[in-house]
Amino acid sequence: MCRCLVCTRHKAGAWYAPGCEERIVMNIVLPDHSQKNLPEHASVFDLAQSISPALAKAALGGQVNGALVDLSCELHDGDEVTILTDKSKEALDLLRHSSAHVLAHALKDLYGDVKFGVGPAVEGGFYYDVELDHSISVDDLEHIEERMAQLVHDALPFKREVVSRDEALKLFADQPFKCELIRELPENETITTYTVGTFRDLCRGPHVPDTSKIGAFKLTKVAGAYWRGDAENKQLQRIYGTAFFKKRDLDSYLTTLAEAEKRDHRKLGKDLGIYMMSDMAGAGLPLYLPKGAQVIRILESWLRKELYARGYKEVITPHIYKADVWKTSGHYDFYHDNMYFFKVNEGTDEQPRYSEYGVKPMNCPGHVMLYANSIHSYKDLPVRFFEFGTVYRHEMSGAVHGLMRARGFTQDDAHLFCRKDQIVDEVAAILDLMDTVMSEFGFTYEAEISTRPEKSIGSDAMWEQAETALKKACELRKLPYEINEGDGAFYGPKIDIKVRDAIGRMWQCSTVQVDFNLPERFNITYRSADNTEERPFMLHRALFGSIERFLGILIEHYAGALPLWLAPTQVVILPIADRHKQAAHDIAKQLTDHGGRVEVYEQNEPMRIKIAKAQTSKVPYMIVLGDKELETNTISVRERSEGDLGSWPVEKLAAILQAAQK
Amino acid sequence: MCRCLVCTRHKAGAWYAPGCEERIVMNIVLPDHSQKNLPEHASVFDLAQSISPALAKAALGGQVNGALVDLSCELHDGDEVTILTDKSKEALDLLRHSSAHVLAHALKDLYGDVKFGVGPAVEGGFYYDVELDHSISVDDLEHIEERMAQLVHDALPFKREVVSRDEALKLFADQPFKCELIRELPENETITTYTVGTFRDLCRGPHVPDTSKIGAFKLTKVAGAYWRGDAENKQLQRIYGTAFFKKRDLDSYLTTLAEAEKRDHRKLGKDLGIYMMSDMAGAGLPLYLPKGAQVIRILESWLRKELYARGYKEVITPHIYKADVWKTSGHYDFYHDNMYFFKVNEGTDEQPRYSEYGVKPMNCPGHVMLYANSIHSYKDLPVRFFEFGTVYRHEMSGAVHGLMRARGFTQDDAHLFCRKDQIVDEVAAILDLMDTVMSEFGFTYEAEISTRPEKSIGSDAMWEQAETALKKACELRKLPYEINEGDGAFYGPKIDIKVRDAIGRMWQCSTVQVDFNLPERFNITYRSADNTEERPFMLHRALFGSIERFLGILIEHYAGALPLWLAPTQVVILPIADRHKQAAHDIAKQLTDHGGRVEVYEQNEPMRIKIAKAQTSKVPYMIVLGDKELETNTISVRERSEGDLGSWPVEKLAAILQAAQK
Repeated sequence: MCRCLVCTRHKAGAWYAPGCEERIVMNIVLPDHSQKNLPEHASVFDLAQSISPALAKAALGGQVNGALVDLSCELHDGDEVTILTDKSKEALDLLRHSSAHVLAHALKDLYGDVKFGVGPAVEGGFYYDVELDHSISVDDLEHIEERMAQLVHDALPFKREVVSRDEALKLFADQPFKCELIRELPENETITTYTVGTFRDLCRGPHVPDTSKIGAFKLTKVAGAYWRGDAENKQLQRIYGTAFFKKRDLDSYLTTLAEAEKRDHRKLGKDLGIYMMSDMAGAGLPLYLPKGAQVIRILESWLRKELYARGYKEVITPHIYKADVWKTSGHYDFYHDNMYFFKVNEGTDEQPRYSEYGVKPMNCPGHVMLYANSIHSYKDLPVRFFEFGTVYRHEMSGAVHGLMRARGFTQDDAHLFCRKDQIVDEVAAILDLMDTVMSEFGFTYEAEISTRPEKSIGSDAMWEQAETALKKACELRKLPYEINEGDGAFYGPKIDIKVRDAIGRMWQCSTVQVDFNLPERFNITYRSADNTEERPFMLHRALFGSIERFLGILIEHYAGALPLWLAPTQVVILPIADRHKQAAHDIAKQLTDHGGRVEVYEQNEPMRIKIAKAQTSKVPYMIVLGDKELETNTISVRERSEGDLGSWPVEKLAAILQAAQK
Repeated sequence: MCRCLVCTRHKAGAWYAPGCEERIVMNIVLPDHSQKNLPEHASVFDLAQSISPALAKAALGGQVNGALVDLSCELHDGDEVTILTDKSKEALDLLRHSSAHVLAHALKDLYGDVKFGVGPAVEGGFYYDVELDHSISVDDLEHIEERMAQLVHDALPFKREVVSRDEALKLFADQPFKCELIRELPENETITTYTVGTFRDLCRGPHVPDTSKIGAFKLTKVAGAYWRGDAENKQLQRIYGTAFFKKRDLDSYLTTLAEAEKRDHRKLGKDLGIYMMSDMAGAGLPLYLPKGAQVIRILESWLRKELYARGYKEVITPHIYKADVWKTSGHYDFYHDNMYFFKVNEGTDEQPRYSEYGVKPMNCPGHVMLYANSIHSYKDLPVRFFEFGTVYRHEMSGAVHGLMRARGFTQDDAHLFCRKDQIVDEVAAILDLMDTVMSEFGFTYEAEISTRPEKSIGSDAMWEQAETALKKACELRKLPYEINEGDGAFYGPKIDIKVRDAIGRMWQCSTVQVDFNLPERFNITYRSADNTEERPFMLHRALFGSIERFLGILIEHYAGALPLWLAPTQVVILPIADRHKQAAHDIAKQLTDHGGRVEVYEQNEPMRIKIAKAQTSKVPYMIVLGDKELETNTISVRERSEGDLGSWPVEKLAAILQAAQK
């Protein structure tokens, strides 16, 4: 029987520590708020063991007071601990980080003199950056995988050691990138290494207990990567891989990856003539080719109609403002690093006097100024301004990615100014519009409400009101939502909408945010029924988010085959011989008159080239025009997915095109 | 008989110089290339005298080798001289400059201690900036005019004197602004004063010979003006006036001025809810209110349709580019002061590396990069890209003026890339489109072709070809044109189109420019029929010029009453009582379904207030809805200029609105 005062584990029978009676015990808090008592120096593994041997076997690591740790990590009294197994979301990162070490081990074994950069877990997998005389080919990857498989099979443990800075520099004396990292570590930082097999790496960890936990892995590609992402630095080889606990998860991931690659909007964007990028122009600044511009204008004009019908009014605001605006809005202090500022001479040539200006990263201040331009009565509210506003936000050049993450993009932005009693209805109406928009593309979606963060402005009552309003609006629309506790903006709570695309990926698009900040900062008001000046509530909302990014998502969602109403070219006419060209143009005109977007391929190229071109462009309808068609006064119609549709009178296609207009 | 070798004037009999035989004579070239011989020290007046006494009487000044001079100015051998009379365009500036001195004289007479700033002739008249304890009122202007009239009546001569810097500083010792100007004059500058009556002014001249030449004048207004246009400086009183040789010209000018004032787009822009300006946002950066945005979108969408029908393709390009683009285009060197540049970190936070970026002042480089994105065959040309591209150009804050001159504006910009043999047709097609556009608004217009300037690039052959093509295109379109010798851009010749508005003012709007420069600088090509790389010709063209400025012109042209198809609100429905509101909304819906833009004024305001509001907004149709209309199922229609149109079935108005859509 245990005699120490707080020790109850013998009774629970889950764990036994020899000599327990003489030792101090700790109190550990579990996720279900229950507590466990453990002896001094007990580790996460010991905790798992104390709960059940099965859990101890499944355990991969832990989360102690929010931080990820090794299974061997020692616990302290009062720690809040979660045991990570392969069911835990966080465990995958551990697994992948460990896989990166196994990759490095294999590289060292195979190539000897390798200079290692960094090897982190990333979204979807892991990578290791290495400097190596040998240029790694795709064939090499298989070879490396074989060596990795052996290391996994050997179930090598990961061993953590704390070292001094001097020891670290000595240990990694032949690793210049590691030395650079060590030298930059803050003075009081604990430096640790992890050893797996014969490979010791500078690493913060944590890792899975041993390599056998790596259930399934795959090296996916090699790419060039500048050391620390800076093009002025050495270019290293980045070997990408992914890893999962189960083979079937890896297989399903690789299938999605292959599908995503086929759908990559950067490749399709080129095939479809949507946009181009230019090094000369700068990173993250797409230039839209005619077909891209056309799709963007169709999207805008469709949404514009929907917005006007819902009582929104369009406004247009400049792309640059004096810094005074950004100081008033708070962007100058809180968003400065993401903005582009420059100086303007407000004086004369002889007596220059400079003011600072900033390129707009958001449209809100402009809309607030427009609101403030006139006096508003409570009866005039809500005021709903929308703008297709192109904004510029700084992104690291390494972070930009096609249309998905650019420095310049156009928000389908709107700001609603309303009374407290109007918030629920306004938010519900936005959700209704969002549903109209997303359903049009066959997107299903999920909602998340983010609530008050620690650092925030506004009274408890305001937050309470706003959060309740957002929830109520979701309930009105029968839209289930998750709560993202404490993840709201500092200026108010929000609803984020993530859409699910054709291959199951989730994309954050729409957002509705309450803003307590700007109405206050710009001191905007309305006149109440009691003739007092009241502060309106302000809602930010975007549906597409960024129009160009949404276009990127649509391209990947539809694998380039944009729906008929959105396809930049809807019909391609292929005259077989020169004598069919006039008829081709006549038909084109007839279809255009019905609102169709038609191209005649009249170059003297072989028919199969023209057909291939139309197929690459994913044009919905292809019309082949020869003697037979001219004689029977019909067109031979081929639809991109349904295939040959036979002979049609032109009117039939014209009617389809007319009906497709939005 | 004159015995000196070159003297032939006795034979010509036009002029006799006593003692001519002994004196050196000069050879003066007249505008018709004929020559006149004059004795040493002969003045412009002497030259006029030598031609005819009538000319001498009419003469007001001269132009010697291009520079304006006093009638008393001495001539030199070889001078090319034009005698200015009241028929000369340049003489009006002289007259107005002289009027400014007369104004100053009158102010000195009336107020004694006046500190004088500057008093130049400007577009439409003249002003004098003065510091004065007394604040000049509109009533004072009449008083000042009386004094000026006396000075004019006295036919006081203007006397020019050259003074040293020290003399000048002594002369103007009690005039601080003049002293500031004197001190800033370059070292070797000749300093002159002009004395009229008892008023002596620091002045470069020239002036009319005496005040009696001022046929008709009028002081028009007083405004505040910062010394040297800088808001950091003292604010002076600026007294504006205008002057003409003939009373009837003054009257006609004042009538136009009054009309123009009523039509001022800045006032109407406010009444119509078109745009707002904000000091906080910065000078020359209009923010468009819903109605302004709506008109702009209607203009754009109308033009877009016209452009698509003419084989143009829309593109969209960023508002910022790396400086590399501007260096390649030449804007970095030649347009730097009009541009806004800033730095962007292309490295990382730890290792920043800055690139310079510039906000676009023009859309051309983007379009050239889009052209260069694909390979072009001679068969694909012309390529016609258009963009509603918002550009930013630096203007002094004192120079900006409503929508007419802003720092940010949207060009209806297009660039055409074509073969040499296509230029004439392309330019003719642009002129045809320009005619369609301008005729829509009832504008008549004039064309000017500007030819090769002294400083220019490109071969003689290229200029010859391009100038001939522009002329030929005008001739094809039966468009008469003036030649503006040497006024082309350095990169190519151009056609400028000036439109005449409803009150006779001319506005420069459309332009077609040939560009030899950018195709060269960006090294763009097409593949010729012979399979060689050829340089395409590039045309810049804009029709509106700046969409917002064109909107400003339209507002002044129509005095705010925009044509039905362009009016942001086409119909206002005024329900008489609450019980008529539902019907008002039903009718609004019916009209909106036919494409109408309708507002229901349902505030509980007196009917006369609502009617006044609709009238101020210049809404084309006003519908009053009461019991009678509901009973008879009709609407009472009032058109803004035709007045009461009686009772209509709703369908009639719906049909009109539908037909008005473009």
